[in-house]
Amino acid sequence: MADYRELWESLDMDLEKHDKLCEVLPEFYGDIYLTQENRPESMNYFNFVVSEIHGLRIKELAELKDDGKKVVGSFCIFVPDEITMAAGAVGIGLCGGSDFWIPDGEKYLPRNMCPLIKASVGAKTSGTCPYFQSADLLVGETTCDGKKKAWEILEEHVPMHVMDLPQMKRKKDKDAWTDEMKIYKDEVEKLTGEEVTKEKLDESIKLVNKKRKVLQRLYNARKSLNLPISGKDALLITQISFYDDTERFIEKTTEVCEELERRIEEGVNVFKEDTPRILITGTPMAVPNWKIHHLIESNGGAVVCEETCTGSRVLEGLVDENRETLDGQMEALSERYLGINCACFTPNEGRIDDIVRLYKEYNADGVIYNSLSFCHTYAVEYKKVKEALEKEGIPVMMIESDYSLQDAGQITTRLEAFFEMIENNKSKEEVATTK
Amino acid sequence: MADYRELWESLDMDLEKHDKLCEVLPEFYGDIYLTQENRPESMNYFNFVVSEIHGLRIKELAELKDDGKKVVGSFCIFVPDEITMAAGAVGIGLCGGSDFWIPDGEKYLPRNMCPLIKASVGAKTSGTCPYFQSADLLVGETTCDGKKKAWEILEEHVPMHVMDLPQMKRKKDKDAWTDEMKIYKDEVEKLTGEEVTKEKLDESIKLVNKKRKVLQRLYNARKSLNLPISGKDALLITQISFYDDTERFIEKTTEVCEELERRIEEGVNVFKEDTPRILITGTPMAVPNWKIHHLIESNGGAVVCEETCTGSRVLEGLVDENRETLDGQMEALSERYLGINCACFTPNEGRIDDIVRLYKEYNADGVIYNSLSFCHTYAVEYKKVKEALEKEGIPVMMIESDYSLQDAGQITTRLEAFFEMIENNKSKEEVATTK
Repeated sequence: MADYRELWESLDMDLEKHDKLCEVLPEFYGDIYLTQENRPESMNYFNFVVSEIHGLRIKELAELKDDGKKVVGSFCIFVPDEITMAAGAVGIGLCGGSDFWIPDGEKYLPRNMCPLIKASVGAKTSGTCPYFQSADLLVGETTCDGKKKAWEILEEHVPMHVMDLPQMKRKKDKDAWTDEMKIYKDEVEKLTGEEVTKEKLDESIKLVNKKRKVLQRLYNARKSLNLPISGKDALLITQISFYDDTERFIEKTTEVCEELERRIEEGVNVFKEDTPRILITGTPMAVPNWKIHHLIESNGGAVVCEETCTGSRVLEGLVDENRETLDGQMEALSERYLGINCACFTPNEGRIDDIVRLYKEYNADGVIYNSLSFCHTYAVEYKKVKEALEKEGIPVMMIESDYSLQDAGQITTRLEAFFEMIENNKSKEEVATTK
Repeated sequence: MADYRELWESLDMDLEKHDKLCEVLPEFYGDIYLTQENRPESMNYFNFVVSEIHGLRIKELAELKDDGKKVVGSFCIFVPDEITMAAGAVGIGLCGGSDFWIPDGEKYLPRNMCPLIKASVGAKTSGTCPYFQSADLLVGETTCDGKKKAWEILEEHVPMHVMDLPQMKRKKDKDAWTDEMKIYKDEVEKLTGEEVTKEKLDESIKLVNKKRKVLQRLYNARKSLNLPISGKDALLITQISFYDDTERFIEKTTEVCEELERRIEEGVNVFKEDTPRILITGTPMAVPNWKIHHLIESNGGAVVCEETCTGSRVLEGLVDENRETLDGQMEALSERYLGINCACFTPNEGRIDDIVRLYKEYNADGVIYNSLSFCHTYAVEYKKVKEALEKEGIPVMMIESDYSLQDAGQITTRLEAFFEMIENNKSKEEVATTK
């Protein structure tokens, strides 16, 4: 990474502590990512992005801020980027994915809470995340108890706006969510001094849809029986989609898609034949949380899809581009976002349909239900998902875990047994078919 | 208890398992309640209610059901009893307060969840709670992630209706809550076949207000420097208010109030002079969860008030009795219920004001912040409450605990230190005053 100390200083960061974080990441990334064999060449851009993770993009943000732009940080895919952009602001995803921030988070939050929330609060309060330091406004939402109450703590450190997400999906809830969209629009307009017009929103809706489409194209390549990309690499691209410049991200990911499609034609497979294909479902994985993917792919499995907020939920479903009024656009946004099947809703039957559908679309052999520790909504919803998958004859395994590597050995043992079971099932099926 | 086996059988209960529960309770109650010295004589009625806890009231409910009445079970003080009653149904509070039900709850729910939710689900699924078995409809709410998702599991066992409580308290949220009141009204009307009229609602609003007023009168007696009743006994009365016949409850609690007021005049104190007076704030205590009160009052403290859902939040704030239309009444209900300062709201500054006010009104010497294990909203809110209380110079201590007695020793040690600190503070103040 180039020298950004002056930039970081200007962001009021704790440089000494930040140095410690910067020391760890390159080796961590090297071990997990650079040791992979036969990676697509077009991943080089994303290697570069990680190598400059607290540098180049932060510099870009600083330059945008110098030009009068505002930066809006968010923590959840329910916050509509389209509105942020249409008001002339830059939206960035801020969820904390590193163990590094947990101790600082625990100064403000109970220990027995989701690591993502603790890390997010720790990232801000420790002054070691330049993205947090660049944000002029944070936008929270009421998707879970932990986050809902954590905003009250973050608010003591940085201006916050909270969107009240309904807990159900009735007609009245869609209206309520449209209303929250409008309140958010007013808020971000106040921040930037720019009005959200129908034209600007048209533009941003199309741009964000374009980003979704390129991610859909990327995911489509993972349906191939010869996997042209690892799950880890696909996850990284999705993670980077949260804070990279949108146009550049689309361009660079298009290059990946082109390479993957060539690879599919050429029959390139980054895994051994017959590697169990895993669909992951559950809680989000924020940078640099690559734990479960790494454990799966280092122990004989391949991740083919994620039914998560850093996976299918962020890329499926486009916003209708054909509304004729600003109100109509707000409704279209509300519809698309309320179509996300997060476990925060009750009931949430749509998620089960999604998992079964994705399992089939991605030719998966098994499902790993991954829940961050102490995430009540996903942990409780496991029972219904498990029952539905078992009814379909789909193997499923639950992993509840935080960011630490203490349970890596135990998870590995369970994964090995799960993959063995899947392989046995497949051989039995083959015998049955050839008989 | 009289012989109710036939009645219990008719409720499809697991009699063998239920026998085990019935075996434990009398001794448990005896140890905690009947060993208290100098109790008000009027507590005899409440002793009797506990001795018949799964008998007499269940028989009454069965008789009401034979007469065509419907029974509606609920888990939260946000569910408006007034509407239940006005539709001709009988409302009962159902929260599980016993460790006995936890293992059955854990068959359906993750272990690292609030004991109240696990016990409530276990009470239903084990078929050992005749109140659950008597209910024709359960009414849930979206006050926390755990409960919100647990309803989906209970729904597989019994008809459920869920009220979507807003997470904030803006004008639009009050309207949304009014709307939920109306949806609930329609639902309970469908159940009973009886229309909720303005006249019936007038009557039930007045009756529930009357119940609140008698509880206010009871709590008022606890403000006295000579405490005429223990915290344990007051808690028991509030707990029983959730399922006893309302008219009889008012009558019997009025008798207690009269006795307590006589005692205050006579200077009767059920505690030694200078016993530290404790305000409890936090999560609800469902029957038979008397753990923290018992530990406090067996180790040198006296509980003078509870800022909880089994305390001040259930009795403070009356519903306006002067609305002229059904819509107006619905709004009045919405206003009163949305006035409850539960940690599920963001922000929830009103709760801090309540705690400080109650601390003063009840002449408390310290605050114990009690949170059921894994309750994120109350656990996170502790930080803000603690800071506010420290600013006021109010001693505060946090206890996070479940229903088991395994941590009783550790809590006792912490309580003793807390009381000692309070006593030292008081002596210092006295020295300062006499100087």
